[in-house]
Amino acid sequence: MSDLILTTYDWVPEAPRGMVRDLRVRWALEEAALPYRVESTPFRDRGPDHFAAQPFGQVPWLTDGDIVIFESGAILLHLAEKSSALMPTDPRGRAEVLEWVIAALNSVDLPSQPWALFRFMGFPRTSPEAEFVETFMKLRLDRMEAVLAKRDWLVADRFTVADLLMADVLRQVNKFDGLAAYPACHAFVARATSRPAFKKAYADQMAHFAAADAA
Amino acid sequence: MSDLILTTYDWVPEAPRGMVRDLRVRWALEEAALPYRVESTPFRDRGPDHFAAQPFGQVPWLTDGDIVIFESGAILLHLAEKSSALMPTDPRGRAEVLEWVIAALNSVDLPSQPWALFRFMGFPRTSPEAEFVETFMKLRLDRMEAVLAKRDWLVADRFTVADLLMADVLRQVNKFDGLAAYPACHAFVARATSRPAFKKAYADQMAHFAAADAA
Repeated sequence: MSDLILTTYDWVPEAPRGMVRDLRVRWALEEAALPYRVESTPFRDRGPDHFAAQPFGQVPWLTDGDIVIFESGAILLHLAEKSSALMPTDPRGRAEVLEWVIAALNSVDLPSQPWALFRFMGFPRTSPEAEFVETFMKLRLDRMEAVLAKRDWLVADRFTVADLLMADVLRQVNKFDGLAAYPACHAFVARATSRPAFKKAYADQMAHFAAADAA
Repeated sequence: MSDLILTTYDWVPEAPRGMVRDLRVRWALEEAALPYRVESTPFRDRGPDHFAAQPFGQVPWLTDGDIVIFESGAILLHLAEKSSALMPTDPRGRAEVLEWVIAALNSVDLPSQPWALFRFMGFPRTSPEAEFVETFMKLRLDRMEAVLAKRDWLVADRFTVADLLMADVLRQVNKFDGLAAYPACHAFVARATSRPAFKKAYADQMAHFAAADAA
């Protein structure tokens, strides 16, 4: 089997370091102990080859033999088929991982991205637009708090890619202090990110971009 | 094999009719000619049974024997395993359907939902917040236009659940006249929604909620 190849930017500014989505893929690969190597694509000059691999001009993408797959969520589900460390193999466990992966990427990330971007942009929190986004975010966090108050992990009492994705989505909310009123969500993020595979993935991403500064 | 059971609200107000996400599942079930029946859950009183099946208190969910699965995107991928009418069976075709399903639910729906909700709320289009959302939406539509200018369907020159989802996400943008400058996106939505399975799904949803009015 040829190694898996994860492609990310060669460099990014300071602000997104530690949050670029290749981290999700590194994390999953480390959890599953799958062999892989990392390649770089220019951050500043995104040419036709980049758009051919990733139609939105973003990262990451994964090369698996003759398959090239983009969208971090899709890559995680693709990898989950290779290792029971990432997803149970029984039909019910698979269905539950699938629903929570999509819940993280759609039901929770839909409000959390504009919420975090509005914070990042420094927009005032009192406009009708900001209040709308805050209310949408609160609606979802209230429900995630109720879910996570009752269990350590989302599916089958064990860590899966569903937790990996949900924790990474909530980690962005936490970065802007959005989990202060949600102790179960906060504890879930802490629990997931204390795993050795997350710590290695995080350190590796930071080192990758720091090496570009030095070059 | 017991029939699949699709659960949606018993009733919704006029505005969301034709857009409630059970439509995606009806559409897929019709494309695949899978037997199913529809059950209702109260829109006004969402009790513990509802939240047990759908933790965000939304619809739809699908019951497939002893599996209950929520998130329309997850339900579509679950159904796609049952019918090659919804997804090719080769590894590359499966990976491409997966990446475009996630692209629809995350890369495109992330800006399109706040964009559409801001329009629905009637927020002015000149605030910094609105301009931010407009720019985010334009970034994604520009890229989708480039993709859809070159192909009728996203994967393998044939209709798949990736088209179903992307068309349904873009249909919401189109509802608020967001595709006027994007002829390929507009033609894609028209092409997908001219399929008999979409028309039946749409008519069935409208009839389901109209029956509740009459009751």
